[in-house]
Amino acid sequence: MESGLRIEAVLDRAVAHAEAPGAPPGLAEAIRYAVFPGGHRIRPRLCLSVARACGDDDPAGSDAAAAAIELLHCASLVHDDLPCFDDSPMRRGKPAVHAAFGEPIAVLTGDALIVLAFETLARGARRRPSRLARLVALVGRAAGSPAGITAGQAWESEPYVDLAAYQQAKTGALFAAATVAGAASAGAEPEPWRQLGACLGEAYQVADDLRDVACRQEEIGKPAGRDATLGRPNAAALLGTGGALDRLHRLTREAVAAIPPCPGAAALRAEIEAQARLFLPASLRAVSA
Amino acid sequence: MESGLRIEAVLDRAVAHAEAPGAPPGLAEAIRYAVFPGGHRIRPRLCLSVARACGDDDPAGSDAAAAAIELLHCASLVHDDLPCFDDSPMRRGKPAVHAAFGEPIAVLTGDALIVLAFETLARGARRRPSRLARLVALVGRAAGSPAGITAGQAWESEPYVDLAAYQQAKTGALFAAATVAGAASAGAEPEPWRQLGACLGEAYQVADDLRDVACRQEEIGKPAGRDATLGRPNAAALLGTGGALDRLHRLTREAVAAIPPCPGAAALRAEIEAQARLFLPASLRAVSA
Repeated sequence: MESGLRIEAVLDRAVAHAEAPGAPPGLAEAIRYAVFPGGHRIRPRLCLSVARACGDDDPAGSDAAAAAIELLHCASLVHDDLPCFDDSPMRRGKPAVHAAFGEPIAVLTGDALIVLAFETLARGARRRPSRLARLVALVGRAAGSPAGITAGQAWESEPYVDLAAYQQAKTGALFAAATVAGAASAGAEPEPWRQLGACLGEAYQVADDLRDVACRQEEIGKPAGRDATLGRPNAAALLGTGGALDRLHRLTREAVAAIPPCPGAAALRAEIEAQARLFLPASLRAVSA
Repeated sequence: MESGLRIEAVLDRAVAHAEAPGAPPGLAEAIRYAVFPGGHRIRPRLCLSVARACGDDDPAGSDAAAAAIELLHCASLVHDDLPCFDDSPMRRGKPAVHAAFGEPIAVLTGDALIVLAFETLARGARRRPSRLARLVALVGRAAGSPAGITAGQAWESEPYVDLAAYQQAKTGALFAAATVAGAASAGAEPEPWRQLGACLGEAYQVADDLRDVACRQEEIGKPAGRDATLGRPNAAALLGTGGALDRLHRLTREAVAAIPPCPGAAALRAEIEAQARLFLPASLRAVSA
């Protein structure tokens, strides 16, 4: 099955568990709303691509890893949009979860999605239970403290920010989890795959900064110019659009060069180059071509 | 080692992982603040008591299960106290996390504690990796949707509340997790242990209702009379103090009767009766003696 279809199917099954009979209706609806329709599903695609390059000998395990990473990403979007953080009214072209369901349900939706990520990993481990502890550790490291997305968001509350730690945790961690968990779900040694994810995470951060500076709200599905409004560092504001695009292409080349030796290296390289193009919205893809 | 010391030690080691070098200082401090000093640690004590009754052949695994359950409990307290829920300024006799660290850090502290719970389970599974999937499933079920503490809290946002589902999810789920995960961490079949946890959870809920109605803030470390203020159901308000105490004792007897046959049943029975007495603050223990 094509990656996109696999990802939607496994996310649908995961979310169905959370909306099982007995669930409070508002929470169940908000959980599905937060996950569907998705964005480009870049992180779970990357996870499956790496698993495939490593032989993908247990598709239930790699499906679960990909879903867990996307569920954690969705959780972070729901919480980051809350009034006490970005106070963002829109996400993926529709009202943010707190705008649609209220703040209490938005907090709980994020919580439930974090729990669901780990439940999904456990459900996917039936055939290869010996791989589960490592997968939980790799995914947990990308989500919590000291260096996961939660820690990344917490840097925004600090008076003195370690900028590298901030960006690595806030964006890089989940990309790195996508590559290491993809490898681990296929029984490969995960750490050699971390650098690929870290480079792609940094590339994605630059692309996100470019979108924030250079695109209109209609194109990116959320308010533009938020970094300036919120006083956050932005590579495109610092380097200019051309400088940021150069940096993006350099990081993509570094990522491709970081692919460890594996049976599916050539196919993976092509997939990563295609996925990296999706980082940018159409109006900037023309500029960068 | 005595249960209380074991629990503090394993929680300390778990929290130390979240505050490792590189963590944003505010988040790291808030995570420790949310976990220490604790309350009576009733849930992890129950978990260890059940593990011991089942032979406790892997103390690292039962320690991890107990810690995971307490970390999830702490996470739920941090989030439940937020302004968008109970807006409670005090917890365990000191300012609530959002009052001490601000709302953004409080949201992230809860998130990080949820992640840490699952990371802790995985770290505890080194000797018995085959038990991990079941432990993650049992603990996840108690934490998320449709029937965990997150779902329990979400019922408070519903116009029509299923009262039994609400109380079972909000309080019962984590007590049931304590007994089933305690059994599973010792390699025993978990489901026969669920009824014991469910009864104790209901008993604890009645005791909590009694404390809310009958005690002063200084004794319980948080504002009294909150259920009336927030329009929540309360057994002591419905049944009177005497009726609620009767119900509490009946539930404790039911719990003891629900202990499955096991090598350590007699010792467990004594421990549960002692723990149930701790549910009540001193002023009500005198009334109920």
